[in-house]
Amino acid sequence: MRSFSSSSQLAHSVVYFLMGEAGEEMVRNKQVVLKEFVVGAPKETDMEIRQGKASLRAPTGAEGAIVVKNLYLSCDPYMRGRMRDYYDSYIPPFQPGSVIEGFGVSKVVDSTNPNFCVGDYITGLTGWEEYSTIVRTEQVRKIEVLDVPLSYHVGLLGMTGFTAYVGFYEICAPRKGDYVFVSAASGAVGQLVGQLAKLHGCYVVGSAGSAQKVDLLKNKLGFDEAFNYKEEPDLTEALRSYFPKGIDIYFDNVGGAMLDAALLNMRVHGRVAVCGMVSQHAVSDPKGVSNLYTLVMKRIRMEGFIQSDYLHMFPKFLTSIIDLYKQGRIIYIEDMNEGLENGPAAFVGLFTGNNVGKQVVCVSRE
Amino acid sequence: MRSFSSSSQLAHSVVYFLMGEAGEEMVRNKQVVLKEFVVGAPKETDMEIRQGKASLRAPTGAEGAIVVKNLYLSCDPYMRGRMRDYYDSYIPPFQPGSVIEGFGVSKVVDSTNPNFCVGDYITGLTGWEEYSTIVRTEQVRKIEVLDVPLSYHVGLLGMTGFTAYVGFYEICAPRKGDYVFVSAASGAVGQLVGQLAKLHGCYVVGSAGSAQKVDLLKNKLGFDEAFNYKEEPDLTEALRSYFPKGIDIYFDNVGGAMLDAALLNMRVHGRVAVCGMVSQHAVSDPKGVSNLYTLVMKRIRMEGFIQSDYLHMFPKFLTSIIDLYKQGRIIYIEDMNEGLENGPAAFVGLFTGNNVGKQVVCVSRE
Repeated sequence: MRSFSSSSQLAHSVVYFLMGEAGEEMVRNKQVVLKEFVVGAPKETDMEIRQGKASLRAPTGAEGAIVVKNLYLSCDPYMRGRMRDYYDSYIPPFQPGSVIEGFGVSKVVDSTNPNFCVGDYITGLTGWEEYSTIVRTEQVRKIEVLDVPLSYHVGLLGMTGFTAYVGFYEICAPRKGDYVFVSAASGAVGQLVGQLAKLHGCYVVGSAGSAQKVDLLKNKLGFDEAFNYKEEPDLTEALRSYFPKGIDIYFDNVGGAMLDAALLNMRVHGRVAVCGMVSQHAVSDPKGVSNLYTLVMKRIRMEGFIQSDYLHMFPKFLTSIIDLYKQGRIIYIEDMNEGLENGPAAFVGLFTGNNVGKQVVCVSRE
Repeated sequence: MRSFSSSSQLAHSVVYFLMGEAGEEMVRNKQVVLKEFVVGAPKETDMEIRQGKASLRAPTGAEGAIVVKNLYLSCDPYMRGRMRDYYDSYIPPFQPGSVIEGFGVSKVVDSTNPNFCVGDYITGLTGWEEYSTIVRTEQVRKIEVLDVPLSYHVGLLGMTGFTAYVGFYEICAPRKGDYVFVSAASGAVGQLVGQLAKLHGCYVVGSAGSAQKVDLLKNKLGFDEAFNYKEEPDLTEALRSYFPKGIDIYFDNVGGAMLDAALLNMRVHGRVAVCGMVSQHAVSDPKGVSNLYTLVMKRIRMEGFIQSDYLHMFPKFLTSIIDLYKQGRIIYIEDMNEGLENGPAAFVGLFTGNNVGKQVVCVSRE
């Protein structure tokens, strides 16, 4: 029977040893649990913090498993979709009473899977809790690149960054000189889309929801222009003033009124990459989009996508983005929230635009 | 000076000879004129019949011109878009007080253009009038295939048929076995889309607005199923019952509520070809489309198109469709309205679903 008598293996974390039924060592395990299916905008009270227990011993089974200590958890709008009683999506819902899950960066503390060793850092789907046992190890991968911030593996170098990469290169069909509009532009995905578009020789304008974010877009992220959509009385006119010749590419992170306004400003053969509709998560009876007739007049292609359809491109993405980052040609802004107990607030904040940059929850730094 | 002393050249038409300013022969020329820009659904009173005059002598100019006698005029929903005071489309608006124009089949009665001879049949953009002088002859082409009904050159073999062909093969990316839904399915475009989809090995369901049209779809046009949308209390449920496994391809001729219902029934990687939104022409404040969030969840591609972007494919289309027609593998249903004076009513009827099949106005049979 293995044990973790060396506290260095679980450094910087207070671990309470308990005894499980089979006499194995158990630790207290703080968890974020979905209380019930969410209606409308998610609220902190839709989730609760539970003091659970975890075994630090990986079960032995056909393919083995790992026990990980979770370090960084990613807050992503798509998770809202898993909080509904809806089974017709690409991913099943969370179950009330159960720990929610999401992308994370974690450290292996025990392993019965030959592909993972104690001490390895991994990234992939994990639980919103201090320790998780992961049996479906195909949902995680070992982190090989350790000379960038670990948390970037759920942001710039993770699902989020890959979403930006796939959406921009595969869906937007960008050409040098294109006029590109990005909504939620300082967010996890938008900030990378804008930078990739600039590197591609495009003219890039972003919208965001505060003066601070607009400043980031213009002065840190290199957007040509940016505006605070909350201060624009008429989004259609705002876009017309920023794009007098019209928009070739709209990378849509929000849907709703901004999409309607963008449709009126698209150029012939424009492309709309539908990445997310965060504005629509929060309303149970969303206002419809009225300007789809422009799709015919302007021969617009509008396409939804999810990154997981393009996983064959992931290695190329990783190499390419790491190179750009190390060359200083792209940067990445994170909004780091300390402590798992602050996870629900961090997640809920996505839907009111609280986050500045990629929202991450730090469960533990090591 | 040429003259038309032989009445056989203008057979079956009463021609009143008048004298023009330069002493040239003029004939009375019945015309359909736009009275003013249209707001909301087009009405017969938005147009008026005017007794104008026409010279039967083609002007001599740099590239010459032709004078044609118009035989068949096409009623197309897109013409509604040219009745608005709106210049940001692919085609400019009609001008109040001027003759409206559209696709037609016509016979050349005079020519100063070496590519056209008196007696040639042509098809392309012409005026809604008895006689038209066409200077921009690049907008018309000589009809070479004379062993199919002449009027088919504005329908099955014209812009309408080509729209179906391009939309189905280029936008829908069809595969054998796909589940295909066509709205306005007995209409000019829909009836051909459905037949092409059947020939491609797809399962095809159409919607239409009357029992007679549903009967046509099922018993003449070979659709697998068809339904009267006016009798369905819940379009989403109706589509669910016809497509228990979901829709791979939605060929959208109507937009609005049907599009919203189809979006909820699309399969992963479904395609929506946005051909027209006839339901939306008639309303000045169209209800929005609420279910675009499915674009992300189902990774749906939704694309507007117009046939004129694909003119390089026209010769192949023509050969292919003529062959299929002559082999009896496709049919084409026309709704022929006699007399130019009935043109406005025929056109307006498109927006209330009066037409059964392709709406054509017969100005003269020869």
